[in-house]
This record gives sequence, structure tokens and C-alpha cells, in this order.
Amino acid sequence: MAHIDIQALVRGDIRNVSRAISFVENNRNGKDDLLDNIFPEIGKAYRIGVTGPPGAGKSTLADKLISLMRARANTVGVISIDPTSPFTGGALLGDRIRMNQHSGDPGVYIRSMASRGSMGGLAVSAQEAGDILDAAGMDIVIFETVGVGQVELDVAEAADSTVVVLVPESGDEVQAMKSGLMEIADIFVLNKSDREGSERAFVELRNILDLKNTRNSDWPVEILKTAAVDNEGVHTVYDKIQEHYQFLEDSGGLRKKRQRRYEKRVEGLIRQRLNTMFWNTRRTAKLTDAINRIDTINKSPYSLAQELIRDLAI
Amino acid sequence: MAHIDIQALVRGDIRNVSRAISFVENNRNGKDDLLDNIFPEIGKAYRIGVTGPPGAGKSTLADKLISLMRARANTVGVISIDPTSPFTGGALLGDRIRMNQHSGDPGVYIRSMASRGSMGGLAVSAQEAGDILDAAGMDIVIFETVGVGQVELDVAEAADSTVVVLVPESGDEVQAMKSGLMEIADIFVLNKSDREGSERAFVELRNILDLKNTRNSDWPVEILKTAAVDNEGVHTVYDKIQEHYQFLEDSGGLRKKRQRRYEKRVEGLIRQRLNTMFWNTRRTAKLTDAINRIDTINKSPYSLAQELIRDLAI
Repeated sequence: MAHIDIQALVRGDIRNVSRAISFVENNRNGKDDLLDNIFPEIGKAYRIGVTGPPGAGKSTLADKLISLMRARANTVGVISIDPTSPFTGGALLGDRIRMNQHSGDPGVYIRSMASRGSMGGLAVSAQEAGDILDAAGMDIVIFETVGVGQVELDVAEAADSTVVVLVPESGDEVQAMKSGLMEIADIFVLNKSDREGSERAFVELRNILDLKNTRNSDWPVEILKTAAVDNEGVHTVYDKIQEHYQFLEDSGGLRKKRQRRYEKRVEGLIRQRLNTMFWNTRRTAKLTDAINRIDTINKSPYSLAQELIRDLAI
Repeated sequence: MAHIDIQALVRGDIRNVSRAISFVENNRNGKDDLLDNIFPEIGKAYRIGVTGPPGAGKSTLADKLISLMRARANTVGVISIDPTSPFTGGALLGDRIRMNQHSGDPGVYIRSMASRGSMGGLAVSAQEAGDILDAAGMDIVIFETVGVGQVELDVAEAADSTVVVLVPESGDEVQAMKSGLMEIADIFVLNKSDREGSERAFVELRNILDLKNTRNSDWPVEILKTAAVDNEGVHTVYDKIQEHYQFLEDSGGLRKKRQRRYEKRVEGLIRQRLNTMFWNTRRTAKLTDAINRIDTINKSPYSLAQELIRDLAI
């Protein structure tokens, strides 16, 4: 951590911000200390999640939203989570290129994170990168994720407002896929709504939403039509995000989200540390021994776990 | 667990198989005992993962593969993982309907599992359901998953052979999505290959694969073209799965996979149990107290976790 200057980071120095995010992304020793040090500085940024299936136009929408935010002199940090591949050696380029119009603007910081690593690891890293941008004084942090997996659900939890971007399409499975996103959307955007089939998709989506809104009517989730590439409807999305922010502020929802994040973070850290403490040389050897006898072993994983944990008092 | 008859389950009694899977899916008390009891009976089924993006035709392909397996008198269990929604109240119907032609066949058991639950939970449940089908004497277990998230990657680990089904499509992001699946594919199927653009998609895919195969040439991943709905090319997929099985058998890969699964299962159980033991009343109260003071708290999650774990000797 010697090479990260926390004071410079908090002043918004981009070199130190970048280093800190890499540090967190690579899960380096001292990461927790770094995040502990910046903790007093976080809690000011508004966190927006932008998610949806590939090709929905998330980056284009984010790009236009950023322009509106910049017009109000808000600084914006973007964490973009790309699928990656060990053998191509890094994140693919799509999103970064598409948001390139802001690349000369010091008020916008865009960072891709690779979706490698283990279960839940990426969502945690993304949230921590968000904390770093927050501490560095960014007014708004955008998490952009591609897909509809667990990472998206986790990242949604890291966001104050989650915008789900869809395009007019059809088919059972696409419908099914949409459902996974239903739960996390605060705002729906039906992008490319100049396309054929858009009205039908809108009605279908609204029918499902009506069902949802009946159960949870505090914040009625709306569907906004856009054609982001032509900048159509983007301002409405921007306004709706503001409205949702106000709603959260007034209803105590923002506080609840902060609480939930704090809680999850502590729980995650404990889980991690317990695990590291548990797997000492003796226990690891016992597991290795069982694995080496896999062909003849009559002890189930359940029995072995029970045996390993029996003598433990915590 | 009183209502599950293990002996009947092992004889292949479907009512008890279904109950056992529900038991596991709902994470009921006694689940570990159940799985412990059937452990001596597992290890005979061959496990096949079929995954890919929505609409690729996974269910249709699985359906035709099942017919070929049945023609050889193999019994088949299918675990189909559907996206679900708390407010529609269950898994969506698509896949089950599509595989309906086998619904009268006692040698085929098809079960949908809902993709609710917490991180990693579904993949674990699916694998445990696979163990139950294995113990019940199914010759082949198919895991069918929709999407490209963490669940797919985890389920791939639960399979001996993973078949990734794609359709000819284009665009950066689709490409990116495919890359997430590159890592887990033992066999690629380019379905709907009678479609326009199929040849281009084939070449694109092959270029990426060449890169991969250079690095890991023990099992060269091939792309098989199918039009599953017309039963075209399905037999080739079936043969390739057999070939991959033989490869794994000969190279020791099957054993390695069993070892890895055993190891992960023990690690998962330990993680779970440590967590349950850790969060006693006193520690939970400490966390709750911190959360209630979220507005003024100056102790970071990292400090609190450190404090909570400091007195621990495990």
C-alpha cells in the first residue's frame, strides 16, 4: 500500500484512484487497510446501477446520462464490468470505446473491471471500487454490468438506483431472462423503442410490472422509452433517477441501503477470515488425504466436514 | 427427513426422488444427513451440462439427445435451472414444455429448479439434485442452465462434459458473452445453423477456439453444427459426448473432476458451518448495534470485522 497516497486519492488524484482500484481488484495484501482508511470519506456519492442483456444499449444510455450530469457540473465515475477471458487476456473493448467521448474530460473517470475471479468476488471488488471513487469525491458513481447473472443482482445491491435497460424482443426465454431483472429494477428503460415490436414489448413488460407494483407500491416502477443513440428520452431517465433519489432520501431508503451494505460487508469479511483461519496445515492435510483416496473413500463430504469442525469452539 | 425412504430412492422410486430433491432445494434441516446417506450410492451417473444464452435451443437439443440415450436404454435425469421471480411465484414454463415428449417415459425424469436463493446456493442445490438422481440409478444426468452467469460456471464444474449451445448472431457484446462460455465448453454446438450468417459465426467462433486450443490441446474443443429442431447434427453431438467421456476416462480427468467436487463440497460445508457457529447472539448484537448507528459510525466494516474476530482461536 506504500505506493498509494490516501490524501492525494481523497483530493481526487486520478493516478492514485487508479492504483487503489487495481489494488482492490487484484485483492492485494493491505486492501482492507486501504478501504478502512478511506471509510470516513465515503457516503457522499450517489450510486447508480445500469444493467441489462448484451446489446441493449447500456453504454450508449450511460454515455448520454453522463453528458447530462456533466452539464450540471457533477463529476462521474463509471465502473464497467465486462466479461473477460483468461485466454484473450483481458476485458473486451466495447463499452470503453462507446463511452470514449468523455475520455478527455477530467470530470469523468471510466474504469473496466474484469469478470474473472471467484463467486461474489467481482461484485465485492466493484463495490469497493465504487467506495474509492466516492472517497475521491465523485458526485455520481455508475456501475454498468453486462448480463443477468448473480453479479448483476449483487451490483444492484451496491447501487442506490438501478436502471434496467431492455430492447424490444420476444420469445419465452427472453421473457424469462427479463424476469430475473424485474426484481432489481427501480427504473425500466425500453431502449431502441423506435424498433418494430416496441409497443408490444412495452405492453408485455407493463403487464408484468403491474403485478409487481401491486405488491410493492411505494415506488411504482415505470417503463421509459428511449432511443439512446438519438438522445431521445434520455432526459426523462435522468429526471426519473433524480426522483428516485428524492424518494429514497424521504422514505429512509437510502439509510437502509447504507445499513444493508455495511452489514453485508462485515458478514463477507468475517466469512473470508474465518475460512483463512480454519484451513491450517493440519486440516488442509486431512482434506488432501481424503481427496487422494477418492476412489475408495466411504466418507462423504458431509461426514468429513463434520469431523473437521467437531473439535472447534468459536 | 422422516418422509424420505432412502432405500426406495436408491431403487429409483420417483416419489422419493422428487421429495429428496425438494428437500435439498428448500435447504431443509437434515439435508446433509440425507446426502450423507446416499453418498455410497453415487458416482455412477455421467453428468452432462448443457448451457448457452436464452433462445439458443438448449431444450430442443437436450430433448433430441435424450431420445438417442433412451434408444440405448440409458435412463436420464434432467435438472433444468430456470430464472424465476418471487412475484410470479415460480419457474417459468418454457423448458419443461419443450421436453414434454418424454413426460410419459418412466426412464426420463425432468425437474426444474428455481434460480432463487443466495450466491452459489443454486449451483450447490443443482449438484446435490444430480447426486440424488445418480443415487437413484439414473445413467445420465443433464444439467440444463439458461444464461451465462456464475451459476452456469458453477454448474459446469458439476458436469463431466459441458456442451455450450450458441446460435449465429453478431455484435461485440454477444461476442463478449460468448467468451464467458468459452472457458467451460468441452463441446460447442452452433445450433440453428441453417440460418443466415451461420458460416460467418462458425469461422469467428473457430478463430477464438484456435487460440484456446493452442493453449490447452489435450482435448481440442470442436464446433458442431446442428439444426436441433430438425434433428440435424444431433447424433454427432451425442457421439462427441461419448468421445469426451472416453477421453476423460483415459486421461484421469474423470477422477480429477470427482476430486475437485469432493474438495469444493467440503470447503463449502465448512464455510457454511463456520458462519453459523460464528454469528451467535453476542456477535450479532454487536453488528446490529453498529448498523443502528450507521449515520454517525466511524468504525469501518473492516475495523468491526477485525474487532469481532480478534478474540477467536480456531
